[in-house]
Amino acid sequence: VPIRDAVAEDWQRIWPFWHRIVAAGQTYVWDRDTAEARARQLWMSNESVYVVEEDGAIVASAYTRPNYGSGPSSHVANAAFMVDPDHAGKGYGRRLAEHALDRAKEHYRAMVFNAVVETNPAVRLWLSLGFTVIGTILRAFRHPVHGPVGLYVMYRDL
Amino acid sequence: VPIRDAVAEDWQRIWPFWHRIVAAGQTYVWDRDTAEARARQLWMSNESVYVVEEDGAIVASAYTRPNYGSGPSSHVANAAFMVDPDHAGKGYGRRLAEHALDRAKEHYRAMVFNAVVETNPAVRLWLSLGFTVIGTILRAFRHPVHGPVGLYVMYRDL
Repeated sequence: VPIRDAVAEDWQRIWPFWHRIVAAGQTYVWDRDTAEARARQLWMSNESVYVVEEDGAIVASAYTRPNYGSGPSSHVANAAFMVDPDHAGKGYGRRLAEHALDRAKEHYRAMVFNAVVETNPAVRLWLSLGFTVIGTILRAFRHPVHGPVGLYVMYRDL
Repeated sequence: VPIRDAVAEDWQRIWPFWHRIVAAGQTYVWDRDTAEARARQLWMSNESVYVVEEDGAIVASAYTRPNYGSGPSSHVANAAFMVDPDHAGKGYGRRLAEHALDRAKEHYRAMVFNAVVETNPAVRLWLSLGFTVIGTILRAFRHPVHGPVGLYVMYRDL
């Protein structure tokens, strides 16, 4: 699977599934109505942005960035991942995560996810990749199907 | 103790202790070299900013904001507090925290601190105010005296 650094022109092919995923309101804390310009800023302006391209389509994207800025905790990364729902279940998420973790190891000592919705099926993937649940912010996410659910803080050494 | 909403002109009297506290590198994840313009943006641009004024001096300040933006977790607040070290130990931190919690209750259901340095003496205050440690990001903060220490994620219902 070809995984590469994103370029600005990729955004127009990320935005359709970005919007679909955020508008569904089941896995991200971002506003379900996030406008495209704001979404582009939230995603494309990060330190590293990756895309998975398959048969001319972008099927997944991820970013990594420092989780706590450039100060005394600058060795801790953060990341986010999205797989186009039309291309789910094909292993793109796992391969993209492995790529992002490998690259993050060059600059960081750990990775933290601040807000993983506990009902997100991706939790299994993060656990299988060595992340652990550090704690749960109870009822912190209003899920459109499940109601108030927790947000996991997840952690992995790099 | 007079606690009030901050106005823009207060910043020039917050910056001296803001800078001193952040440059010490013991309690905040922000870059120890944070420039004044960036510091003002980090502090004064938040949803609510409070100051404690005593005998014409600003001796403490705090902000609250949504911890996860305006989406499905918009009911969870975040906050930060600073007391001028020259005015420490007089109870300003506690009274400011009580004020910020009371005001946050008007709009939020919970408050989260994402990165409380585990050696910060303020941890005792947060515990006494009903916060609990949800989890610890191990070795996530490079403390200039204690070396690598953990960052607590702390939580309280409102």
